[in-house]
Amino acid sequence: MSDTINRQVRLAARPVGLPKRSDWRFTEEPVPQPPDGQFVVRISHLSLDPAMRGWMNEGKSYIPPVELGAVMRAGGAGRVVVSKHPAFKEGDEVAGTFGVQQYAVSDGKGVRKVDTSFAPLARYLGALGMPGMTAYFGLLDIGKPKPGDTVVVSGAAGAVGSVVGQIARIKECRVIGIAGGADKCRYLVDELGFDAAIDYKADDVKDALKRHCPKGIDVYFDNVGGEILEAALARLALHARIVICGAISQYNATSPPKGPANYMSLLVNRASMTGMVVFDYADRYKEGAIQMAQWIAAGKLHAREDVVEGGIDAFPETLLKLFKGENFGKLVLAL
Amino acid sequence: MSDTINRQVRLAARPVGLPKRSDWRFTEEPVPQPPDGQFVVRISHLSLDPAMRGWMNEGKSYIPPVELGAVMRAGGAGRVVVSKHPAFKEGDEVAGTFGVQQYAVSDGKGVRKVDTSFAPLARYLGALGMPGMTAYFGLLDIGKPKPGDTVVVSGAAGAVGSVVGQIARIKECRVIGIAGGADKCRYLVDELGFDAAIDYKADDVKDALKRHCPKGIDVYFDNVGGEILEAALARLALHARIVICGAISQYNATSPPKGPANYMSLLVNRASMTGMVVFDYADRYKEGAIQMAQWIAAGKLHAREDVVEGGIDAFPETLLKLFKGENFGKLVLAL
Repeated sequence: MSDTINRQVRLAARPVGLPKRSDWRFTEEPVPQPPDGQFVVRISHLSLDPAMRGWMNEGKSYIPPVELGAVMRAGGAGRVVVSKHPAFKEGDEVAGTFGVQQYAVSDGKGVRKVDTSFAPLARYLGALGMPGMTAYFGLLDIGKPKPGDTVVVSGAAGAVGSVVGQIARIKECRVIGIAGGADKCRYLVDELGFDAAIDYKADDVKDALKRHCPKGIDVYFDNVGGEILEAALARLALHARIVICGAISQYNATSPPKGPANYMSLLVNRASMTGMVVFDYADRYKEGAIQMAQWIAAGKLHAREDVVEGGIDAFPETLLKLFKGENFGKLVLAL
Repeated sequence: MSDTINRQVRLAARPVGLPKRSDWRFTEEPVPQPPDGQFVVRISHLSLDPAMRGWMNEGKSYIPPVELGAVMRAGGAGRVVVSKHPAFKEGDEVAGTFGVQQYAVSDGKGVRKVDTSFAPLARYLGALGMPGMTAYFGLLDIGKPKPGDTVVVSGAAGAVGSVVGQIARIKECRVIGIAGGADKCRYLVDELGFDAAIDYKADDVKDALKRHCPKGIDVYFDNVGGEILEAALARLALHARIVICGAISQYNATSPPKGPANYMSLLVNRASMTGMVVFDYADRYKEGAIQMAQWIAAGKLHAREDVVEGGIDAFPETLLKLFKGENFGKLVLAL
């Protein structure tokens, strides 16, 4: 292995606003032989996630920030190429938090084997990976939808949102998705079975929510924050549950983010707003993965990946697609 | 009765900012004989509550707004002077939502008899009334404090806050109160047994919370909103519960209220923020009242009323004491 070169993307500077090319540093180093109990993965697919923006900032969060100079944290999937680990053998296909690089050495912690005869590898970074788990536990455990509830999800054509909406449909809820652009909205309704979709780039979201949620919103799953969160707060039903999963509209703000000015709607409607981090459900991933796979196998849940065939050098630009709302489905970079 | 004159305070205009004298209209009318099944109360004590400010605004809330021209809604206590109701007799002392007036005709709905041999009448508008119930159910049902938890309450020297803190102490929590002024802070620690108090007029609340809550805040009971809510959000412990009971700092704002810019702390800490309205607990008031009375009888819970001997004409000015933070304990106007 030590003749093989591993190209890596490291965090060079903490970005102000959108990450710039100069916030990254490309490095190369030989791939080491794995020590006993470890193995080497050749990463073929990198997961690009909105949360990565937060990991680039200094300061306390739900996970330590990526240190300056370190390989950028990222989920990924690939194939084991050398193993000295009893549970992983050469040729195994695996997914884990491998970082933005071509090869990773792993002791197997947090790594799972995947079955590409069931679904393409990229799907294990999306509906069958962390975004799927986020949707599953966030909606069901925090949102607690009941049949007949009105469920609204923002970032609805994204990796998490698209799954949230479909699970809510499976649970016999009325589902409204908020997404950017007519294509995405059409996809939500025509292909994923959402009851309605709101194009936040073309529609007045507040008005549209009024129209589509005559009895108010019972569950709002928020991936975006900002004005859309306020629009949802303005339309809550009694005892509504808001799941705070992300706030992508705010991640690159260079001025302090705006809080939801109408948060007192929580009082008026005896509603709750609860933050969720998928890692807390690690001991239940198996339950989630089995259920998601069953729904996919039964044709009840569809997934779409936006695979960019760019190689590792395209990482900086490809990541930006998330923040510009350009991805359609789970954004994956093929190496 | 019809020779007796009832002086009333009616809502004349929807206030912008702090209610002005001209937002009220004083009227007089004869007190009618009660019809069968009703009775007349002579109101001796009016409850002045921050929530009244919200009832003066137009628009959807947890309760319909007071209509222009109507007698202002208010809790009160007094004595039955004439009765044609089988369950209430002349001389009974009662508390209920009687309005800002000297006499009220009632059919008994939502009216309870009180025992002034146990506690002074004004206390039935405070610790033994709605503020006490708000504290009891808000803290225990929504805040769910566990022994050893750090509980922070704002508006801590007010009618609700002072009870919240004491119940949290009874539940073996570490309790920090936030109040305005050294006198109130001393009272919280020396007389009510709070572990610490923060004077928001003199201290940097964020720094002080850091100092007093080294392990973070497990339960934050918010009566004030604004910057103090942000300071609390900045100091949450994992799985913290925020009870949204009020936002007195925002009620008279003439510009749109500021939402909590750092609400994403809910995600970082997997925390929740939940609104509560005491009326939802109506079918459990008895449970709360019995428990509160037991704690008071046992000397575990102290209450203080700020009784202004002003008569009904002093209503407009007395109400403002709440918004200027001038009341110390439950604000009551004696008629």
